[in-house]
Parts: sequence; structure tokens; C-alpha cells
Amino acid sequence: MHITSQDIQDMDKRRRAAFINSLSGYKPANLIGTADAAGNTNLAIMSSVVHLGSHPPLLALVIRPGGEERHTLANILATGHYSINHVSAHMVEAAHQTAARYHRDVSEFDATGLTPKWRDGFPAPLVAEAEISMGMALREHQHLAINETHLVIGEINFVEIPEHCLREDGAIDLASADTVVLAGLDTYFDTSAIKRMAYAKPDLPPRVIPD
Amino acid sequence: MHITSQDIQDMDKRRRAAFINSLSGYKPANLIGTADAAGNTNLAIMSSVVHLGSHPPLLALVIRPGGEERHTLANILATGHYSINHVSAHMVEAAHQTAARYHRDVSEFDATGLTPKWRDGFPAPLVAEAEISMGMALREHQHLAINETHLVIGEINFVEIPEHCLREDGAIDLASADTVVLAGLDTYFDTSAIKRMAYAKPDLPPRVIPD
Repeated sequence: MHITSQDIQDMDKRRRAAFINSLSGYKPANLIGTADAAGNTNLAIMSSVVHLGSHPPLLALVIRPGGEERHTLANILATGHYSINHVSAHMVEAAHQTAARYHRDVSEFDATGLTPKWRDGFPAPLVAEAEISMGMALREHQHLAINETHLVIGEINFVEIPEHCLREDGAIDLASADTVVLAGLDTYFDTSAIKRMAYAKPDLPPRVIPD
Repeated sequence: MHITSQDIQDMDKRRRAAFINSLSGYKPANLIGTADAAGNTNLAIMSSVVHLGSHPPLLALVIRPGGEERHTLANILATGHYSINHVSAHMVEAAHQTAARYHRDVSEFDATGLTPKWRDGFPAPLVAEAEISMGMALREHQHLAINETHLVIGEINFVEIPEHCLREDGAIDLASADTVVLAGLDTYFDTSAIKRMAYAKPDLPPRVIPD
């Protein structure tokens, strides 16, 4: 099928959202933990975390202007900090539920049964149930005029991870952390490895690294 | 394990890259097809495509300043267009190989055996072997001073997709397109669905949608 720009514009709103949200491919599923200046917590599932660079260690996050994500942005700007927590398979239902439009006074931790975990001096809560969590410091905030979204760039302050999830080369074995992956707006997947590839070089053919 | 910012800084370069590239969670695997003004093609695997919005349909892409990705950026800026193509399981080896630092005169299509597919009037090649491809028009380009990366925002001009990959609600069944997912720098996965969740509402508990 060849779907044109006009076809996309003519779709009804929900259909278009389901379609376009699927087009980037699989997406990471992360919970963003924040607190306001008074320590009131907020938790929101987001699928827009993207690697920006390793040195300094930076991750970017796209935050939408409306709904639940607005509270997350306000808290990040107020305290300059937030946590990123991988969604594991056993947390999918609670994590998805954080997307509901709770009133600002309701903490999604209370509403979903997930547990805030505090670290000395760090003003945002981690998620106790998550296997992999990061403490982030806001480095840059840009308003993208093209569609009123916000680009939030943060530096990794610390990482909490079970030792058994670290591969010998420093990479993380996401499968052993039970980290899930998201497609579109609502479908959660676990994964199985197809192959690991060696560093690509122009004068060598593709080489699979054996298990 | 608690890994501090200093621990990260003290890692050797390759170990740090492997570690930080794993932290955002699973990443989409896409091939970016471009051509220069003379029609010479380039193809590069990227894991940084992120959904920006559905109306207008926008995807963002983070491009690193060095190496192979530099040619992609130059072509996008020269023609204002590019293609995004999902990597399917059968293409993993060729797709990964596009990351090798070929000389600018070498097309990664020729080097890896993937086939350029042209659409009337569209100045960038799609990948014939891909199940799902999009034609993109550049809408905005930002240089991110914080680490010299580039944020490229594009609007979806058209989508090519097999009809059997579209779900009734408009979402794409990525598993039926054999789209793969990437962890870190080198490990490719396929997926199996855990559960599909209904739209979250504050006054209802999480509800799984049956198959």
C-alpha cells in the first residue's frame, strides 16, 4: 500500500495517532519520576527517550505539551532533576496506567501501587520496582515551535543496575533485566536475541559474534 | 550496583559507549536512505528515530557529527529529503554493515547488496528489501551545541507498507513486518507480544485487551 500525506491528514484523530506512533519502529518504555519543589511525586510512562551521546553521557526526551506529561515537565524545570526507569515485564500494567490523566494532586505512585525510592540529596524519586534506574540532571530545555513539543536534554548523574545485567564489554543485557519494548501506543513486547554483530569495517564482511 | 558520574567518566571510551548506548532501553533500527544533488546514494543505519507528533506527522532523528552519519546529514541538507526504512530480520547483517566507514564515493547500497528503490519525483532512495518505508521531507534542522549532534525534524510525505501489517485501529503490527529492535550498539532482537493495554483512565484499573 502507498499511503500519501493527504491520506494521513484525512484519517480520524485516533487512527492517525495509532498509525504515526507506530512508524518510528519499536520504542523504549521508560517511567519518568519527578517531584515538585514541595516533594509531591509524579510518574509518567514515556517512549521518547533517545541516546544523544556518551561523553558527556546525555539522553534526550521529547515531552508533549498536553495532558499528564505537562506535570512531568513542570517538575523537571522546577527541580532540575528527574529519574528514568526501565519498565520490566512485571510492571507493564502499572506503568501503562500512569498515562491516565490524574489530577495534579494525585501521585501516580499512589494511584498505580509503584513505590518511590529516594536517594540522598537527589530531588526526584526512582521507581523501587524497576531493575534499571538513572538519576538525571537537566542540561538543556528547548521548546520546538514546529509542534509545541519540548526537548529535554539531561546528563546521567548515576545508574542503579543489578550486576548480572552488565555484559563483559560494558553493554547492558536488557533481556536479563526483563526490560520491555513498546509498539505504537499500547502493545508491550519482550525480546529474543537474533544476533550480535561485530563492529562494522569497510574491508570486512558482516561478522556475527557467536554466543 | 550504584554507578556514579565519576565511574562513567573513568570508563575507557569503548566500554562507556557500550554502556551509555544501552541505557535508554531498546532502540528502533532504521536505515536512512539519501542521495546527494547528483543522485549518488548513501545508506546508514540509525537507532535514534523518535516520534515527535502525529498532526502534522513528524519524526525526529539525532545525527552524530562524525563518521558515516556526516554524509547522511550533508545529503539531507542538500536535497531536503530522506527515507526511513525499518530493518527486518532478514536484513540485519547488511543493515549493520552500513555503519562501516566507507569512503564518500562508495554507496552503502553497492557495498552491502541492498537495493535502492526510487519513487517518481522523490529525490532519496528507499530500500527495496524493507517491508516498511517512509519518504520524509526536512522541516527543521538544529545543531545541538551541548555535544555537537544534530536534530533533524522531518515530515512524513508517504508510507509504503504491506496491507497485512495494518491493524484494524490503524496501528502497525511491527512483528508481522519482521521489524527488529536494537540494544546497545550491536545486538538485534525480534519480539513477542506480552500484552496490549486499553487506553488508561484515572477512574478505571489497567485493562488488558484480549487477542
